[in-house]
Amino acid sequence: MKIISNIDEMRLYAARLVKRGHSIGFVPTMGALHAGHISLVDAAAAADAKVIVSVFVNQVQFAPNEDFNAYPRPIKKDIKLLRSTKKVDCLFTPEAAEMYPEGYASHVALENSMTACLCGVTRPAHFKGVTTVIAKFLNIVNPDRIYLGQKDAQQAMIIIKMMRDLNYRTQAVICPIVREKDGLALSSRNAYLTPEQRNSAPVIFKSLQMVESMVELGERNAETIKKEIRRKIKEENLEIDYVEAVSAADLKPAEQLSGKVLIAAAVFVGKTRLIDNIIIDIP
Amino acid sequence: MKIISNIDEMRLYAARLVKRGHSIGFVPTMGALHAGHISLVDAAAAADAKVIVSVFVNQVQFAPNEDFNAYPRPIKKDIKLLRSTKKVDCLFTPEAAEMYPEGYASHVALENSMTACLCGVTRPAHFKGVTTVIAKFLNIVNPDRIYLGQKDAQQAMIIIKMMRDLNYRTQAVICPIVREKDGLALSSRNAYLTPEQRNSAPVIFKSLQMVESMVELGERNAETIKKEIRRKIKEENLEIDYVEAVSAADLKPAEQLSGKVLIAAAVFVGKTRLIDNIIIDIP
Repeated sequence: MKIISNIDEMRLYAARLVKRGHSIGFVPTMGALHAGHISLVDAAAAADAKVIVSVFVNQVQFAPNEDFNAYPRPIKKDIKLLRSTKKVDCLFTPEAAEMYPEGYASHVALENSMTACLCGVTRPAHFKGVTTVIAKFLNIVNPDRIYLGQKDAQQAMIIIKMMRDLNYRTQAVICPIVREKDGLALSSRNAYLTPEQRNSAPVIFKSLQMVESMVELGERNAETIKKEIRRKIKEENLEIDYVEAVSAADLKPAEQLSGKVLIAAAVFVGKTRLIDNIIIDIP
Repeated sequence: MKIISNIDEMRLYAARLVKRGHSIGFVPTMGALHAGHISLVDAAAAADAKVIVSVFVNQVQFAPNEDFNAYPRPIKKDIKLLRSTKKVDCLFTPEAAEMYPEGYASHVALENSMTACLCGVTRPAHFKGVTTVIAKFLNIVNPDRIYLGQKDAQQAMIIIKMMRDLNYRTQAVICPIVREKDGLALSSRNAYLTPEQRNSAPVIFKSLQMVESMVELGERNAETIKKEIRRKIKEENLEIDYVEAVSAADLKPAEQLSGKVLIAAAVFVGKTRLIDNIIIDIP
């Protein structure tokens, strides 16, 4: 596994792969890698000849009051984990000073209801930072496919919409959420949890599973379902940021559930904000 | 000369050129082509193996009160002119409905003092539209070099800054302004001028030439120079939008002229807004 931190070197490495006729699968991450990230690597290795993973904690997607400084950066452990897969051809770990040098002033943004809802309500500049860094990576790596986790469902859909709008050639592949045995969605932020908080956190997925059963049994009212999720989560005394049921196609709020529905929640477990979701396909 | 209007077809055509090892020179235009545009084609043909020209009147860079509908679209004449050069391999003329389909919602923007000054004062959303369409073209064509005219000096510099910030591989080449015999800078908008207005318009360049002589003779005060330009232009009873002297490196206002200085003017000749500029290198 080659490790590259220089942007021009990364560009040349990727261009050579394309020239040799290899397809490139790209997995963007902020590091602190877990089995969820590795599932993206597995998917990339299965479909593409070469796999490039980036590890970059992207400051422009954090608000001043968020956890940019606290965000875990166990780069040695990440490198070891990526090497152990034997599926990663190149790790790209750019320096912040090269990604956003002095005088940097450009951005790429999607401006519609997709970025204003769900996480966009409490993190208004977050997705602008995400689409900007992804556009930069696409311009450097020029991959055939980019692998994104359903865990960040809204983020994945916003990236896909931005890529289509701006005519990137890259195709997106969304991979399922990987969970702990007790259902907690894997997240680099789980590392912040105290043992007690770790015990409470699985209630988020449990509440989603519960309403999945309700939908299977015929419930179609979004408000009823959201209330149930809130009630269940509050049993663990957790603070809810949002619970929403939206169309999985355009993230528009659903009153009556039909078609592909994304049910998503953001919950504060102590100071740690965790997100989770399920997608239910209602015929 | 191949003519392509479909985005995916254009992408494939350009990708095949790259795969065969050809370098691509790209000349973005809004059509109504004149010798200024052809000078860009000449420069591209001199440096690159293949030349792709786009003709697209980009609605998102026009404000509602501007001349989007009136903008000339003599596409048959443009095609004939491009063919006659024997230097253009492909003309890309996308449809607006494919470039900005229903639900389109993304943009690429540079947000610093470069977009807020000069033309950015009276055309606040203009450059956001320019950087967005150029980013789209770069993603479709992926050229080695993009050819831009010094006539739109601010636009060229903003595009270059955006391309660097977002890590596009494409290099920019800025080509000199092409002028009529009487000094008027070639512009597609010159077609709007009545014979009388056409007679007045050369005063813009004459005023710039005049201050160039003043600088040669030692004048370094920006205010003095701007006053002289305004005085000269007003002799023809034209309405001035702006006259500015700025650093050619970052478009920041200069009080005392030194280094590379861009002296730029925007003037209404009747209802037609014309721009012109000179760059003076002061040792």
